[in-house]
Amino acid sequence: MNVNCSGDPYFLEPFWMRHAASSAILVSGWHRMGYSYSDGSYISQLLVEHIKKVHAIVGNAITEGKYIVFGSGSTQLLNAAVYAFSPDTSSQSPAKVVATPPYYPVYRTQTEYFNARNFSYEGSTSSWINKTDSSSTFIEFVTSPNNPDGKLTKGVLEGDNVKQINDRAYYWPHYTAIPSPADDDLMIFTISKLTGHAGSRFGWAIIKDEAVYEKMLTYLDVNTMGVSREAQLRALKLFDVVLEGDDGKEIFKFAYSTIRHRWTKLKEIISKSKRFSLQKLSSQYCTFFKRERELSPAYAWLKCEREEDRNCYEILEAAGISGREGSLYSADNHYVRLSLIRSKDDFDILINKLNTLVAKQ
Amino acid sequence: MNVNCSGDPYFLEPFWMRHAASSAILVSGWHRMGYSYSDGSYISQLLVEHIKKVHAIVGNAITEGKYIVFGSGSTQLLNAAVYAFSPDTSSQSPAKVVATPPYYPVYRTQTEYFNARNFSYEGSTSSWINKTDSSSTFIEFVTSPNNPDGKLTKGVLEGDNVKQINDRAYYWPHYTAIPSPADDDLMIFTISKLTGHAGSRFGWAIIKDEAVYEKMLTYLDVNTMGVSREAQLRALKLFDVVLEGDDGKEIFKFAYSTIRHRWTKLKEIISKSKRFSLQKLSSQYCTFFKRERELSPAYAWLKCEREEDRNCYEILEAAGISGREGSLYSADNHYVRLSLIRSKDDFDILINKLNTLVAKQ
Repeated sequence: MNVNCSGDPYFLEPFWMRHAASSAILVSGWHRMGYSYSDGSYISQLLVEHIKKVHAIVGNAITEGKYIVFGSGSTQLLNAAVYAFSPDTSSQSPAKVVATPPYYPVYRTQTEYFNARNFSYEGSTSSWINKTDSSSTFIEFVTSPNNPDGKLTKGVLEGDNVKQINDRAYYWPHYTAIPSPADDDLMIFTISKLTGHAGSRFGWAIIKDEAVYEKMLTYLDVNTMGVSREAQLRALKLFDVVLEGDDGKEIFKFAYSTIRHRWTKLKEIISKSKRFSLQKLSSQYCTFFKRERELSPAYAWLKCEREEDRNCYEILEAAGISGREGSLYSADNHYVRLSLIRSKDDFDILINKLNTLVAKQ
Repeated sequence: MNVNCSGDPYFLEPFWMRHAASSAILVSGWHRMGYSYSDGSYISQLLVEHIKKVHAIVGNAITEGKYIVFGSGSTQLLNAAVYAFSPDTSSQSPAKVVATPPYYPVYRTQTEYFNARNFSYEGSTSSWINKTDSSSTFIEFVTSPNNPDGKLTKGVLEGDNVKQINDRAYYWPHYTAIPSPADDDLMIFTISKLTGHAGSRFGWAIIKDEAVYEKMLTYLDVNTMGVSREAQLRALKLFDVVLEGDDGKEIFKFAYSTIRHRWTKLKEIISKSKRFSLQKLSSQYCTFFKRERELSPAYAWLKCEREEDRNCYEILEAAGISGREGSLYSADNHYVRLSLIRSKDDFDILINKLNTLVAKQ
């Protein structure tokens, strides 16, 4: 019983089937038995180099002069970052952790669950605008493109005591135009949304400040002693494939054209309906594709427009369509998130059922 | 810079080299891309079955009617268990987490690091004997065989409000006699000390109570959304090899005879010295080998006997011997932990240098 199935990124499975030979790994029984790599760390430097190359090719993040740590998915890194930005001593007041709705629910559930004395979840960012000149540290989660609605966003709080955690899971040409390379203080990426390997539990953070980097490392050591060496080896091999062929553009072209096609189909159906609507996104110039590009968000943020359709999730569910309720994202239940990154079968079923639902109106 | 290198369990590398063909895994690019297994969980049920079989063969733990969860090494499970046993609501006072020195330092560092409102580290178990009838929950870490000294231990606190976390990492025939199957409420095992694959970060907990099991699952979901599927696949293959051949006894015979040989050599050297001594362990009947067996602890808990040798670690270090200071285990620095589970090369160097040091007296 987990809440994340609907984000399963199976849409990239055909790409990996097409690259069967080059993407397989063979791990012998005596491979990497020890705790650490030869430099004594839990982090493969070769994999760090691969990650830097991918960012350089895509132009979605500046890595020069920055530090990189690995986590068990972005999940582990989000909480590691909260610890890294929170005060070390109990003499300071707890950091206030905030986000802007609609936002990815893990920010809140994690922060509340771990229940630490040095931070606490303090709800929506908007209630703290112009109130950050206090003695507390503020930790603002900024997701860009945003999950669920795909918008390119920026932090809204300002001040020396405001730290941002930039969740960049979806900042890939699959899902959005790349207007310029991100250069935030702390950016979090995950292989789940890049190559589609959610099950590997592999993510990375790119960090400007050395002291924050050291704190992230400490969290990862204390929490799990680093990331599985098998997952690191797998990621290395997958990055090899990402980097080879067509100047490293093949996977991005495949992923983008798949999602763009899906978004177009979905939009076509919803445009026939007055009962439902989709988020408005504006197209932008993409430095990766070197042109203004059509939209391709990972999720549809569908709205039931009728006032009486207070629970849009139930309306869709009754039609056999599974989404995720708006309230999970701290938004209103007139909204539902539908995934466009699942397998082709799942998407075709979605389109079929939506067609039927819209036709019935 | 990590503190665990000296526990690197490379002594089993030759076993895996000998089983080259059967222990290798091939992972194709499209293998297990999604978050969950077909039952919607993050836990491979096939691997659960393998784990139960190994425990049944070894007779070191009762698994019938119990629940099993996976973690990124025992490291992640130790903290998950502390959360699972701590009160959910802030209206109750924080759980008191305790252990008996000398103890594995992670119990303390983790509990202090995560700094949660619902638990706190409260030092040595001994100071709480006969004081547990309060309103607080007590969480007692019990390590058996103990790390660092290899002794078979039991919990010392009593009462309805005392919960035990039984760290059973070393409860394998490699390291100790198995007098009877362990049947504790919450037992933690790790592949690091069973097959030697520390880098895989794979551990499991065996849990009696369903509510505690559900809480452990929640922690693992919120913290990392389960364990890397690559690590689970690797573990499955390694267990296959553990279970095959010689009725599943081969790895245990190999591991035991290796460590027993090392302990015998070490004891021989130390017996020539009045300056140093080793922990006293008593031999016991082992239900796995079906006989009284010689000793084979994973670590030597070496003592510098001279009063003036206040820092035994430095004395050894000056002789080129790397161990871990007693104070790390909340013991006195007349003690040092030496690892007997590293590679043959590392062990031969240790013996050589100890010989020289003892001869110089």
